[in-house]
Amino acid sequence: MSTQTNIRARLLISCHDQPGIVSAVSTFLHQYKANIVQSDQYSTDPSGGMFFMRIEFDLFEEGYDFTIVRQAFANVASSFKMEWKMDLASRRKKMAVFVSKEDHCLLELLWKWRAGELPVDIPLVISNHPTLQQEVESYGIPFIHIPVKKDNKAEAERQAIDKLLQHDVDFIVLARYMQILSPDFVGTFPKRIINIHHSFLPAFIGANPYAKAFERGVKLIGATAHYVTNDLDEGPIIEQDILRVNHRYTTEQLRVAGRQIERIALSRAVAWHTNDQIIVHGNKTIIF
Amino acid sequence: MSTQTNIRARLLISCHDQPGIVSAVSTFLHQYKANIVQSDQYSTDPSGGMFFMRIEFDLFEEGYDFTIVRQAFANVASSFKMEWKMDLASRRKKMAVFVSKEDHCLLELLWKWRAGELPVDIPLVISNHPTLQQEVESYGIPFIHIPVKKDNKAEAERQAIDKLLQHDVDFIVLARYMQILSPDFVGTFPKRIINIHHSFLPAFIGANPYAKAFERGVKLIGATAHYVTNDLDEGPIIEQDILRVNHRYTTEQLRVAGRQIERIALSRAVAWHTNDQIIVHGNKTIIF
Amino acid sequence: MSTQTNIRARLLISCHDQPGIVSAVSTFLHQYKANIVQSDQYSTDPSGGMFFMRIEFDLFEEGYDFTIVRQAFANVASSFKMEWKMDLASRRKKMAVFVSKEDHCLLELLWKWRAGELPVDIPLVISNHPTLQQEVESYGIPFIHIPVKKDNKAEAERQAIDKLLQHDVDFIVLARYMQILSPDFVGTFPKRIINIHHSFLPAFIGANPYAKAFERGVKLIGATAHYVTNDLDEGPIIEQDILRVNHRYTTEQLRVAGRQIERIALSRAVAWHTNDQIIVHGNKTIIF
Amino acid sequence: MSTQTNIRARLLISCHDQPGIVSAVSTFLHQYKANIVQSDQYSTDPSGGMFFMRIEFDLFEEGYDFTIVRQAFANVASSFKMEWKMDLASRRKKMAVFVSKEDHCLLELLWKWRAGELPVDIPLVISNHPTLQQEVESYGIPFIHIPVKKDNKAEAERQAIDKLLQHDVDFIVLARYMQILSPDFVGTFPKRIINIHHSFLPAFIGANPYAKAFERGVKLIGATAHYVTNDLDEGPIIEQDILRVNHRYTTEQLRVAGRQIERIALSRAVAWHTNDQIIVHGNKTIIF
Repeated sequence: MSTQTNIRARLLISCHDQPGIVSAVSTFLHQYKANIVQSDQYSTDPSGGMFFMRIEFDLFEEGYDFTIVRQAFANVASSFKMEWKMDLASRRKKMAVFVSKEDHCLLELLWKWRAGELPVDIPLVISNHPTLQQEVESYGIPFIHIPVKKDNKAEAERQAIDKLLQHDVDFIVLARYMQILSPDFVGTFPKRIINIHHSFLPAFIGANPYAKAFERGVKLIGATAHYVTNDLDEGPIIEQDILRVNHRYTTEQLRVAGRQIERIALSRAVAWHTNDQIIVHGNKTIIF
Repeated sequence: MSTQTNIRARLLISCHDQPGIVSAVSTFLHQYKANIVQSDQYSTDPSGGMFFMRIEFDLFEEGYDFTIVRQAFANVASSFKMEWKMDLASRRKKMAVFVSKEDHCLLELLWKWRAGELPVDIPLVISNHPTLQQEVESYGIPFIHIPVKKDNKAEAERQAIDKLLQHDVDFIVLARYMQILSPDFVGTFPKRIINIHHSFLPAFIGANPYAKAFERGVKLIGATAHYVTNDLDEGPIIEQDILRVNHRYTTEQLRVAGRQIERIALSRAVAWHTNDQIIVHGNKTIIF
Repeated sequence: MSTQTNIRARLLISCHDQPGIVSAVSTFLHQYKANIVQSDQYSTDPSGGMFFMRIEFDLFEEGYDFTIVRQAFANVASSFKMEWKMDLASRRKKMAVFVSKEDHCLLELLWKWRAGELPVDIPLVISNHPTLQQEVESYGIPFIHIPVKKDNKAEAERQAIDKLLQHDVDFIVLARYMQILSPDFVGTFPKRIINIHHSFLPAFIGANPYAKAFERGVKLIGATAHYVTNDLDEGPIIEQDILRVNHRYTTEQLRVAGRQIERIALSRAVAWHTNDQIIVHGNKTIIF
Repeated sequence: MSTQTNIRARLLISCHDQPGIVSAVSTFLHQYKANIVQSDQYSTDPSGGMFFMRIEFDLFEEGYDFTIVRQAFANVASSFKMEWKMDLASRRKKMAVFVSKEDHCLLELLWKWRAGELPVDIPLVISNHPTLQQEVESYGIPFIHIPVKKDNKAEAERQAIDKLLQHDVDFIVLARYMQILSPDFVGTFPKRIINIHHSFLPAFIGANPYAKAFERGVKLIGATAHYVTNDLDEGPIIEQDILRVNHRYTTEQLRVAGRQIERIALSRAVAWHTNDQIIVHGNKTIIF
C-alpha cells in the first residue's frame, strides 16, 4: 500500500490511430484513482494515421503506487501496440553538457538550473578545451576535459561515452560544441542529444552561418535547436527563433545578436525535453 | 438510422474539476463510435478548481446520428454539472459585422471569408455611416445603415437588435465600430460580441489610444481583440499583437501601423470563435 | 524664379567613402536654401569602403526651383564620382503589378493604395490568367491578360515589356506571379522588379516551399521580399518576416498562415521602394 | 600636435530646428579632418520644431587632437544654441548597478560585460540585501550592502550617493532594485538612472505587475526599460519587449517568462546608453 500524497506523473504515447485509445487510457487512469491534470493529443490523420498523446496526472495518498500503475499500464499499451513512457514529474533527469570555448549557451543553462527553472541534475560538463573549467566548477559541477584531435576522435568519443554511461546520463546538450559526433556516438543516445545550430535551419547548414548570413544580406537571423541525427543539421527541429537585423550589422555583430537567440531557443528546447513535452516522430517533433 | 459519413463535431465543456471526467467523456464517445481527433484540456487547479475541455471527434456512417449523440450526452453532462456545447464543425455560424467609416478590419474579414479561410455566413453588415455601403454590397452582403445620434441611441440599438435576431445571428464583430453599446445590447448577446481595441490593453483604455501612445513615447504599439462586456475595454481578452515603432512615428503613422495589427489580432480572434476554440471563464479566455 | 512652397525632395547617394562628402552635400543644400529634414548614412568600412546616404530636404518658396537644384548638384556628384538620384517626394511612381491566380498580395497592395497608404499610380496589372480581371477592374485599374505557354514565353514577355514601356512604368511588383522571367526581361528593369518569395530565404529556394517546410518540420515559416535578378530567389533581400507554427499545421494551413506574412513583407518592401528608402549594393540592400 | 591614430568619437546634438545645422556641423568636422562614419538625424517638425543629431566620426593621426576638436566645437554649438555632448568612443563609462535579491538582470549585464559585449567599467554593485554578494565578488566587482529600512531611507540614499560620487559613476542601472528612489536621489543623476519595469508600460504600473497580468488574462507580457524620473514608472521609455503567453501560465510562470524579456529589454537599453545612442527630450527618447 502506498503512502504517497499527490504525486504528479506523465505519460507519453505514440501508436497507430484507432478508435477507443483515449477512452481506454483515461478509464485506466480513473480506475487507478489518478486525476488527469492536463492532456494533449495529436493525430496526423484521423482516418488511419499516427496518434500521439501526453497526459499529466496526479496520484493521491489513498490511491495506487506509481510503480504499480506503470506496471499495470503495460496491458493497455500492448493492446494498442503503443510506444510509451510513464515517468514521475519529480524524477530529475540527468543532463550532460558538451561545450567548446563559447560560454553563452552553457551559462544560460547553468543560470536557469541554479534559479530552479530547469529541474535537472547536471553530473558533468565535457569539453574539448579547458577554457570553461573554472566557470563550470564554480557551479559545483565536475568539468571533464577530453581533447579532440584529428587522430584521437574515436578514442575521445569512447572516453566521453564511458563517462556518460557511468553517470547514467539521460540526455546530452551540445551547447555550442564545435565537433561533429560519429554515428556510433549518436546511435548510443538516440533522440537524446540536443544541439543548437546558429542559424534558421534549413538556411545556412554547416559552418560559419553568420558569415553566410552576412554575405546573403538577410534581414532576420535565426537559431535552431534540434535533435542530433547522422545527417548534419538535419535532425528533428525542436525550436527556432529569430531576431531582426539590418545592413549595419557586421558578421561579428550578427554573431553577438545571434548569441541571444541561441540561448533562448536552446533553453526552451531543453526545458521541453526535461518536462517530457516532446515526441519525436520520423524527422519531426510534436511539442505538447 | 444514420446515413452520414465521417461527420466532424466539437464539444466544449466547463465544470468543476473532479475525478473521472475525461474517462466518462471519452468512454461515452467511444460507445457512440466516435473517433477523437483532437482533445485539449485545462484545469485551473487540479485539486478543486475548474475544468475545461475541447474535443473534436468524427462520427462515421455506420455509427450514430449527431442529434442522437448530442441528446445522449446530456446525461453525462448533468452528472458532472457541466456547461457544455456540442456542434457540427460543418455548421456555419452567422456573423454580423458592425462598422463605422474605417474599412481595414472589415475588408480583412471579407477577404478571408471570400478566400474560404473564414467559414461563416455573413447575413448583414450594420453601420452608423453609409460610407462602406458600396464596398460591402460588392461582396453580395446586405448593408444596413442605422444612423446613431445622441437622441436616438436606444431606438437605433433596438433596430439593430431586431435585424440581428431576424437573421438569427450567432455572433457580432465590431470591426472598428466607434459606438459604445448599451448594457441592454450587450446582455442580448453575452460572450458573443468581439471588439478590436486599437491598443495593447490594459494600456490606453478608451478613446484615441494612438495619440496617447505617441504622447507616452512607447516603443511597441498593440491591438487587442476581446469580448465586449459592460466595462469599457475590460472584457475577456482573446488575442493581442504588437508592432515595433520608434520616435520617428507620428500619431498618424502609428495609426497606419496599428491598422496592420488590428486586422491580424481581430481576424485571429474571429477565426478561433468561429471554430469553437474559445471558452470564456470569468474575465478570461481559454483558447484551445 | 520659383513659386514653390515647401517642396519635399529626396537624394540618394552611393560612392567610395572619402573625407568631406557630408560636408559638401549639406553645404550645397544649405546654399540652395534647402532644409535637411532627415538624413541617414552608412559606410561599409570607414577606412576605404563604400558610402551610402539618403537625405530628405525641403525647398521653400523664396528659394530655388527643384530642377535648378538637381542640375546644380551634378557638379558635387561628379567631384565625388557618385551614383545618385534626386527626386520630388510628391512625384508618384508608376507601379505595375504581375499576378497569376492568387489574390492576397495583390489585394493588400490595392487596399493600401486606395487607403492612401501607398502613394503610387498603378497604370496596369498584368496576368497570365484571367482570374483576377474583375477584381482589378473594380479598382478602376486596367487588367491585361497575357497568357504564357511553353512556346510563347518570349513573345509574351515582349508584349508585357511593350505595355510597361508604353505606360512608362517605374517599377514592377510580382505579387505571386508564378512565372520565371527571362534575363532579357530582368535586364530591362534592373533593380526595379520586386518579388515575394513564400519562404524565409535562403531556406526553401524554388517551388513549393510550404510543402518543403512541412516535410522539414520547421517551427517558423517565413516570407522574403527581394529584387529579382537572374539567379532564382537569389536577388537582394529587402524584407523578411516570420510566423510561428507547430506540428498541427498541415501544408495547406502553412500556406494560409504564409499568406499573412507574404502580404506584410511585400507591402513593406514596396512602401520602402516607393519612398526611395532602398539602395542596392551588390547583392544586398541598404534600407534607410 | 597629436599623435593619435584613427580615434573614434561621438557627437550628440539637440537644438531648435533651423537651416544650416547639418552643413555647419559637417563642415566643421571636415575642417578638423574628421571623417563622418555614421550620422543620424531627427526633426520633430521640419518647420520649427526640435532637431536631434548623432554623429560618429574618426580623427586621424595627422589631424587634430580630440580635446582641441571638442573645444573648438563650442563655437558652432553656441551659434545654434545646442545642447551637445562630444565624447571618445573609447572612454568606458562607469556603470553602477543596484540590485535587491533577484539576480537575472544583474547576471545578464555581468555576462555581457565579461564577454566584452558591454564596454563599461563597473566600479560597484549596491544592494539593500546581502544575497548576491558572493556572486558579484566572483566577477571581481566590489559589492556594497546598504540596508534600507523604513526609518533610514534618507541616510541609506546619502550613503549610496557618496559611494557613487566617490567612484565618479556615469550612470546607474536598477536591475530589479525594489526600492523607490527619492526626488533628491533622482535629481542627483538626471537622465542617468535606467530602470527595468516588469510590464509593458503603461499597463500595470506599480507593484506586482505579473499578478495583475494574470488577473487581466493578457495574451502577451512585456518588460519596459526606462529612465527614472519622479513619477513612478512614468519616465522616458527606452525599450520594450514582449513574450506570448496563454491561459496555462500561472502568476509564477508569467514571472519566469518575464525574466527572459526583462533581461533582453534592459540589456539593450544599457547598451544604447553606453554607446551614446539615446537623446532624452521631454518624456520621450530618441534612439539613434
